[in-house]
Amino acid sequence: MALISSDRQRFPCDPWRLVETASSPDDAGTMETLMALGNGHLGIRGSFSFGGPGKLPGTFINGFYETWEIKHAENAYGFARTGQRIVYVPEASGFTVTIDGEQLLLAESTVLDYRRSIDFSTGIHEGTATWATRSGATVNTTVRRAVGFTGRGLLGIELDITADRDVYVDVVSTVVNRQDLPVSEESFSDPRRPGRHADRILQPLHLEGADGAFSLAWETATSHQRVAVAVAHETNADEQPFETVVAADESSVRYVLAVEGGRTFRLAKSVSYAVAGESQEEDRGEALAAQAGAALADVDAIFADSAAHYRHYWDVADIVVGGEPQLQQAVRWNLFQLAQATARAGVSGIPAKGVTGAGYEGHYFWDQEIYLLPYLTYTNPHAARQVLESRHQMLPTARRRAAELSVDGALFAWRTINGLEASAYYAAGTAQFHIAAAIAFAANRYGWATGDPTFQGEIGADLLVETARMWASLGFFGKDGMFHIHGVTGPDEYTAVVNDNLYTNVMARFNLRKAAAAQGRPDVTERERQLWQQAADRMCLPYDSHLQVYSQDADFMTLEPWDWTTPKDKYPLLLHFHPLVIYRHQVLKQADTVLAMFLQWQDFTAEEKQRAFDFYDPITTGDSTLSACVQGIMAAEVGYGHTALKHFTEAVFIDLDNTHANTVDGVHIASAGGIWSSLVCGFAGMRDQGEMFHFDPRLPEGWDSLSFKLTVRGALLAVSLVADAITFSLQDGPDVEPLAVDVRGTTVRLTPGDDVKVALQPVPPATPAVFPGSFPTTGIPIIGKGLS
Amino acid sequence: MALISSDRQRFPCDPWRLVETASSPDDAGTMETLMALGNGHLGIRGSFSFGGPGKLPGTFINGFYETWEIKHAENAYGFARTGQRIVYVPEASGFTVTIDGEQLLLAESTVLDYRRSIDFSTGIHEGTATWATRSGATVNTTVRRAVGFTGRGLLGIELDITADRDVYVDVVSTVVNRQDLPVSEESFSDPRRPGRHADRILQPLHLEGADGAFSLAWETATSHQRVAVAVAHETNADEQPFETVVAADESSVRYVLAVEGGRTFRLAKSVSYAVAGESQEEDRGEALAAQAGAALADVDAIFADSAAHYRHYWDVADIVVGGEPQLQQAVRWNLFQLAQATARAGVSGIPAKGVTGAGYEGHYFWDQEIYLLPYLTYTNPHAARQVLESRHQMLPTARRRAAELSVDGALFAWRTINGLEASAYYAAGTAQFHIAAAIAFAANRYGWATGDPTFQGEIGADLLVETARMWASLGFFGKDGMFHIHGVTGPDEYTAVVNDNLYTNVMARFNLRKAAAAQGRPDVTERERQLWQQAADRMCLPYDSHLQVYSQDADFMTLEPWDWTTPKDKYPLLLHFHPLVIYRHQVLKQADTVLAMFLQWQDFTAEEKQRAFDFYDPITTGDSTLSACVQGIMAAEVGYGHTALKHFTEAVFIDLDNTHANTVDGVHIASAGGIWSSLVCGFAGMRDQGEMFHFDPRLPEGWDSLSFKLTVRGALLAVSLVADAITFSLQDGPDVEPLAVDVRGTTVRLTPGDDVKVALQPVPPATPAVFPGSFPTTGIPIIGKGLS
Repeated sequence: MALISSDRQRFPCDPWRLVETASSPDDAGTMETLMALGNGHLGIRGSFSFGGPGKLPGTFINGFYETWEIKHAENAYGFARTGQRIVYVPEASGFTVTIDGEQLLLAESTVLDYRRSIDFSTGIHEGTATWATRSGATVNTTVRRAVGFTGRGLLGIELDITADRDVYVDVVSTVVNRQDLPVSEESFSDPRRPGRHADRILQPLHLEGADGAFSLAWETATSHQRVAVAVAHETNADEQPFETVVAADESSVRYVLAVEGGRTFRLAKSVSYAVAGESQEEDRGEALAAQAGAALADVDAIFADSAAHYRHYWDVADIVVGGEPQLQQAVRWNLFQLAQATARAGVSGIPAKGVTGAGYEGHYFWDQEIYLLPYLTYTNPHAARQVLESRHQMLPTARRRAAELSVDGALFAWRTINGLEASAYYAAGTAQFHIAAAIAFAANRYGWATGDPTFQGEIGADLLVETARMWASLGFFGKDGMFHIHGVTGPDEYTAVVNDNLYTNVMARFNLRKAAAAQGRPDVTERERQLWQQAADRMCLPYDSHLQVYSQDADFMTLEPWDWTTPKDKYPLLLHFHPLVIYRHQVLKQADTVLAMFLQWQDFTAEEKQRAFDFYDPITTGDSTLSACVQGIMAAEVGYGHTALKHFTEAVFIDLDNTHANTVDGVHIASAGGIWSSLVCGFAGMRDQGEMFHFDPRLPEGWDSLSFKLTVRGALLAVSLVADAITFSLQDGPDVEPLAVDVRGTTVRLTPGDDVKVALQPVPPATPAVFPGSFPTTGIPIIGKGLS
Repeated sequence: MALISSDRQRFPCDPWRLVETASSPDDAGTMETLMALGNGHLGIRGSFSFGGPGKLPGTFINGFYETWEIKHAENAYGFARTGQRIVYVPEASGFTVTIDGEQLLLAESTVLDYRRSIDFSTGIHEGTATWATRSGATVNTTVRRAVGFTGRGLLGIELDITADRDVYVDVVSTVVNRQDLPVSEESFSDPRRPGRHADRILQPLHLEGADGAFSLAWETATSHQRVAVAVAHETNADEQPFETVVAADESSVRYVLAVEGGRTFRLAKSVSYAVAGESQEEDRGEALAAQAGAALADVDAIFADSAAHYRHYWDVADIVVGGEPQLQQAVRWNLFQLAQATARAGVSGIPAKGVTGAGYEGHYFWDQEIYLLPYLTYTNPHAARQVLESRHQMLPTARRRAAELSVDGALFAWRTINGLEASAYYAAGTAQFHIAAAIAFAANRYGWATGDPTFQGEIGADLLVETARMWASLGFFGKDGMFHIHGVTGPDEYTAVVNDNLYTNVMARFNLRKAAAAQGRPDVTERERQLWQQAADRMCLPYDSHLQVYSQDADFMTLEPWDWTTPKDKYPLLLHFHPLVIYRHQVLKQADTVLAMFLQWQDFTAEEKQRAFDFYDPITTGDSTLSACVQGIMAAEVGYGHTALKHFTEAVFIDLDNTHANTVDGVHIASAGGIWSSLVCGFAGMRDQGEMFHFDPRLPEGWDSLSFKLTVRGALLAVSLVADAITFSLQDGPDVEPLAVDVRGTTVRLTPGDDVKVALQPVPPATPAVFPGSFPTTGIPIIGKGLS
């Protein structure tokens, strides 16, 4: 059931904020995700700060994780051994507020007014409420929160309490080491959900506090990661803290005071986190806590820093959808999530949920390369480079993994935090070798789009070459003289461990070609280069000549059709059918061949793309949130404007409407990245990594305009699309070079500082292909299945 | 390194016994398996009874198991949930013997002579030793053990002690509840090895004892299976037991006495086990212990019972290999194991290790139908029927499992004790749907060979029909009009989850045909019958027309060749390569297509069989012990006498020489069954389930003769083979009908009581097929792999 889009009273449409005007316990967890704060490093789920226990509150630091030995019910050689899981760091955003002896609780107190919002333009989370106390007072409370960007470990919180008469205020401000969650290691049936630990994870290293300030440090039990939290409080009252209590699991400062009617009691809580890896030093906590303390900043300064960050952000990254206010709000929410997931991640991967939840264990997947890096490369290239640097740092681990899996070069883990394979189900994990090509592809795009002069030599060539070596050894030249890659799983996890997955082969071909062309690598022999070139040239792409459609893999077209009368409550299929049942049927979790044709657009004709879309779109369940955006992009390209908009709208509301019923576990960041691609590559029709940028726009019917900016070779390129024209404005500047772009086959030369407008003709709608009947074709009568 | 066959000093060749003349700690565990005792219900590993801790001693009862919830590192819908494991029942075979204050220990005492043997003709295990004590005495000890057959819960043990001078003897006879093993639930990397439990499994229900007798009962903690042990002791001395101690984990009776030089102290220990399932009664132990006690028998009677059993057994089941004493001993050892695994199993499955060890967790697999039931059907049809009855009893569970896996009819668990799927790795477990056909096939053979008038109506039709329903819904008619079965794993576990595995399809076809022909099932509609017939008629059998060989599955011929320079210590591959590596290469763990052509012999021409053998035999690693026997049978048929003998010899010594390095975990009973088939079907060339028996003999060069008996429709058919003739003697008797058999295309009519001799011409040796080069065939030059 839709959440945001179906209840505009509760969630009024606002172009720059997500606002909730009434709270409900039913969707408390989802709202914690939708209202979360983050900067790519530190994340705080969007609970109301006080007034209720919250559904799944928590604070995360990207890459701060615990490990354990994976226990396989039936183990085999090379199965993943080291479980990794992002863990809750001590939570500093909580309060309890008691007025005249009555604790303010959303569920029990009389709440006259309620409002929670997150402001995309400033990054400030605000929760306000008006309470009628049993003592007869009317009390306004407001909590504002923001994370730092200049200092990425910072969190500022401000609590204001104003009553209409004199009241006694009792505020407890806490730092809680949430040992209650996650709590138990157990078998769970949805691999998308976070698992739980049985034992105490965070062991105290250093606990100190007095006069309203804390200096605390802990260490994870097994991975020996360390985290410190420094906290300072300031009030506008003269009263000193009543009590400062320090303990391993909950430290607190308590303020008890009388507040005059009409006056505001303000409590500012400044928090600073610092993390570090394993240390052999005796002092493993104190110095780290001191480091956190030294970074502490005033809450006002943190708020100002956040607002400044977003001023710049929207200057370079905003996308304006003309005439569609509800979509505009949803688009901005997605773009805001992208910033929150990536802005200050540093040299690190981007978890599948950013820092908004523990879903997918805080792991890094291929999503970051295929779904996030397009956005990041064109809006924040420095951050994009850092993500690729983090992959580069995993190379030694990936080389070891390659040897273990009997391939050359580097084999990147399908899901990981520390570089080790953490996927305990290889058929939908390690078998997804295509992650190698995703990394090579993203590295190539980064170099292509930024012109970063040091990238190729320091990082890019390593990533290309080591992945190419992997492909060359994984595949082989078959009896037909073609290069085959067998026993792999493509992006569509509803088939697994197949031969010649088209997506994989097309992406591997790209990978091999680029590696063969890479310069300045004396360790690459000429024979090696030739092998890569030959493997690429002879790459097998399965094609069904009867249907005239590329086949998702060597056998896909021979599979049994799925029973499309399956009731809706049996989706997602992975929760209701054994993998063996899903795998043997012609049914897709997500776009696969269609995705290949988006990413390697230059390798396929318009007709091939349309036939593939016509064939695969109806059998794609979209059980993966990675699917709708891609389906929409290719619907736009092949000429189905209505379908494109439908898929896009579905994608843009995946979290806002909680359509996959697991937004509680965090924002689907890859889908948010897909929203960016949907707008830029779907509706504006941008394609990259060829000779120049290509644009083949498809403005949806009913939209007035679509405008965005791309950061290209250090300069901003503004693109503005209306129904009959597309306008480019290349930013003026001393170092900006002219740029050529292709619009529907015509080369357009852009000079810095000038607007160039190109007229567009309407695109005729496509006619869907009709495929030969798939059942039966021999003319022999067959007794159908499903006899009673 | 070979064990028995390479050291004939230590293991002298004896046609009716396995004898060990020196003990070694290096192979203590293997010898415990080789010397184990059992009757299909109760099994006692062959430790020396006293004198050392033993390597992995233990007592088992077939089907007495503990359960636990399987924890998958990454769970999914329909994954197996209930772990099952055969557990150690309290061990009653142990003693300690102390002479003049010196405990006799093989490792520490002075041992002048040592001998351990198991006698195939009587079922008596005997361990004798001569010890020089520190007190100066020479002491002979002998322990004899046998299990009961009339009473299958019985174990008789006799301990004799004789010294050459007066000695003080101190004997403690124990009943030990081995809580030390198995001990911990953990991830283990060899699925063939037994796992371990973390917690105390057997909880005491009833513990009583006095005057050298015990009455004990326990219950498993989770599965609530109950076991009782009653023990009585008798000596030839007047001394009363010095001490009778009863406790949950170790109860004991101690005898301390002076024994005159030259006199023998004899202690007879009679043991009776009883098992029962869960009970809600308050008395869950006492009655069961009383039942065990009531069954107690004299040790001499147990020995006599065992001897009588084997007298009869060898009368009907012996196979004589003329002129090959070492092979003869090994063959008899295997036949003896088959009796020990099956004789008194009752309505029960036969564990993969019989009752000789905890390997494979005591589970029942398809092995029992394909490898054991041929032997059992033709030597002990009553027991064969009971195995099929046990499958029939699993039907309700199998129907529920079918629904869970989205198929109709019944889906039998790949590995199980209680009927529930226990395979935690579906790709080599649940995906082996072919177990259904194995059951149908074995049921058909039983009916065919015995003429049992009640079988088809009570059991056979249910098994045929419910499995046929499963196949009809699992497969489908593809676009080519053929019936396809996708997403299955065949017997060869070195490929997994493939389409149209030839073995599976051929066996499913048999299953569907027989079900379509089954009579007297009003619930089977005519349309259903037609569907089965049509599915069978149009069953897809993958065939490579270039190689002119049936393909193991739809894609097998496109796989990359295995690197056959892989060092020997990397086998078995499953312990040294990730499944993804193994699966994508053309390499077999065990015969698969070749097995199909053995079992469905009538469906393939001689040339097809030979080409398949020529193609697959060189790429079969034999990493499975199920392989060598089948490879040998088909080598014999297609005309490779030398290869047939090589494979047979390998098979016959698998355990005796511990060639797979895991005999410690128990006898490979399926391979032992395969020995029977190798002799009867391989060298005597018997094929069944057609219109009549077929014989196409292939006596190995160097063998004088081969003789065996088959129980057919209640009568014994003796078959005797020499180089130039085969002789049949059908037992005379009032109910015995004449029998027609086919010898190399000629029908031979056998009348009861007459010998019929058929002359045989030598079989010319076959010429191996030459296959077209597999690499490359396009004429385009290709840069090879493995560049430096």
